[in-house]
Amino acid sequence: MGVSLKDIAKRAGVSVATVSNVVNGYRPVAEATRERVRQAIDELGYSPNLSARHLRNGRTGIIALAIPELNNPYFAELADAAIREAGLHGYTVLLDYTDGDREKELLVSQGFRAQVIDGLILSPVQLRRADVLSRTSETPMVLVGEGVYNVPYDHIAIDNVAASVAAMTHLLGLGRRRIAFVGAQSDVNRQPAQLRLLGYQEALSGAGLSYDPGLVVTTDYFGRSDGAAGLRRLMALPEPPDAVFAYNDLIAIGVLRAAVELGLRVPDDIAVVGFDDIDEGRYSNPTLTTISPDKADIGRRAVAALIGRLDGSREAEPEEVQVPFELVTRESTLGHPEPG
Amino acid sequence: MGVSLKDIAKRAGVSVATVSNVVNGYRPVAEATRERVRQAIDELGYSPNLSARHLRNGRTGIIALAIPELNNPYFAELADAAIREAGLHGYTVLLDYTDGDREKELLVSQGFRAQVIDGLILSPVQLRRADVLSRTSETPMVLVGEGVYNVPYDHIAIDNVAASVAAMTHLLGLGRRRIAFVGAQSDVNRQPAQLRLLGYQEALSGAGLSYDPGLVVTTDYFGRSDGAAGLRRLMALPEPPDAVFAYNDLIAIGVLRAAVELGLRVPDDIAVVGFDDIDEGRYSNPTLTTISPDKADIGRRAVAALIGRLDGSREAEPEEVQVPFELVTRESTLGHPEPG
Repeated sequence: MGVSLKDIAKRAGVSVATVSNVVNGYRPVAEATRERVRQAIDELGYSPNLSARHLRNGRTGIIALAIPELNNPYFAELADAAIREAGLHGYTVLLDYTDGDREKELLVSQGFRAQVIDGLILSPVQLRRADVLSRTSETPMVLVGEGVYNVPYDHIAIDNVAASVAAMTHLLGLGRRRIAFVGAQSDVNRQPAQLRLLGYQEALSGAGLSYDPGLVVTTDYFGRSDGAAGLRRLMALPEPPDAVFAYNDLIAIGVLRAAVELGLRVPDDIAVVGFDDIDEGRYSNPTLTTISPDKADIGRRAVAALIGRLDGSREAEPEEVQVPFELVTRESTLGHPEPG
Repeated sequence: MGVSLKDIAKRAGVSVATVSNVVNGYRPVAEATRERVRQAIDELGYSPNLSARHLRNGRTGIIALAIPELNNPYFAELADAAIREAGLHGYTVLLDYTDGDREKELLVSQGFRAQVIDGLILSPVQLRRADVLSRTSETPMVLVGEGVYNVPYDHIAIDNVAASVAAMTHLLGLGRRRIAFVGAQSDVNRQPAQLRLLGYQEALSGAGLSYDPGLVVTTDYFGRSDGAAGLRRLMALPEPPDAVFAYNDLIAIGVLRAAVELGLRVPDDIAVVGFDDIDEGRYSNPTLTTISPDKADIGRRAVAALIGRLDGSREAEPEEVQVPFELVTRESTLGHPEPG
């Protein structure tokens, strides 16, 4: 194995972040400290030249983060957290953009570009458990999100069923009885949508309400326009809903917009809950009640788990790490405060 | 110089995209075509192994795109366009995240990580003209956005002054006379804010209105919260404004939110125009009138210019390329249509 920043930090008696600052020049480091780090680098034979490092020890200092969407702020916020965390450890993040396409997810997972990356963080959408189990690439991988469970890789996610039950319990507690779900997927391999729909069904059942498939809107994609179209379909029903639980915040924001266009009052006529807690929902009119996964924590833990595998400090069996979430209640369910 | 995908495409008599599909496996290619491409690859001595390619001809197939913000959808949409265009040419995009920090922009520009990239597309925020002129790195670079002008690099941008004049002319045409500008920057090296403020001033002058510095709000950053705080400050003035021209859409969306909280009607009490045309402004309540730069065109042209420099097909002197923009009028200036 090659020499890692951690090895140098240990030898020099400084933090990994300090070594990274010396090597990458991110921040000024006191001359005496810099000299200690340089000496440790010389003694251990580490070279910050990426090509030389790559040839000598099979490392490039680059980890890939493969996400399905750039235009969804959820992934931008997640990537932001991962990039900052990786930077602290002296790693650069290469963003891979899978477009939620199964073929691209397979390519990334199977080691496409393995020559230039030390490890991979993958947020799969369509990848199946069997795909992951049959993976032959030896590039360390960490999974994030709800795509695949029970695989021999570290996996960082929130409990999607519990989160959906929390969203539904809030709506039920406000007296809503005809609650729609917008954002179901026709492809049953799209796990997150399945898990959130499961939570929706569980909560209905727990409240003694029957499940009406007519209140579940399947969408092609996960965007604002899908939410707007979904509400229009629902409001054309003989018995329209009094609330919407949306698969994600973008869909919920499309629902809010369509409500205005349809002349509906939110939450009086229709209450809306999203999922993701993107910044946009804190400034929408009305502001959006939503499930808030701890995105910064997901990014941090995914990077930490991967780097732990790379530098050998994480040797335990791969584990499923559950990150906390919370329900954030705002105007889309609680109503507008008086202006002031 | 090494062998490029273009060389192979020419030899095999197919498009660069087809070669890329064969080499990278993005999409299925008919067996006969695939064989022709493989033969051309063998004849020309091209190797898709990135490390080997790097050693042999100094190319990695990776271009870096350095952007200041991941959480601003403007840059996500721009990156999206660049990634798609680069993929068509067989290039992968490495996202560099400068955080709008001058030191990081200098690092990126001066060749940080030059070993792993073939070229760089940089959207500078604080980098100065002198910094660019004194650049010694030989890695080909293309600039996007309004950070730096008159430098010997291809530069893709819109005409910010003209765009701002267009936004102001729209507000003036609606009869607004006390128009505020939200998003000025105290650092005069922040060019885009300076240019948009210049357009604001030019339009006022053209309409025979005097410039009131009290209507210009300087913000620390470019986010929704800055816009919300800005409107609160403006509405506390003895003579509050009747319109806001915001530096960008995120600031404008913060203004829209604060207007609701202050009990103001948009556009009756205050009309709002943004800049960027991010998707969010198409679904906000009210929808946002904005300047729409052709982001897809910026991404495409930046990648095309860079690849042209890399493969030698672009040999002309570096040029300033102006990309079109348009004013998109929506509810935040025109008012709400009847629900329906």
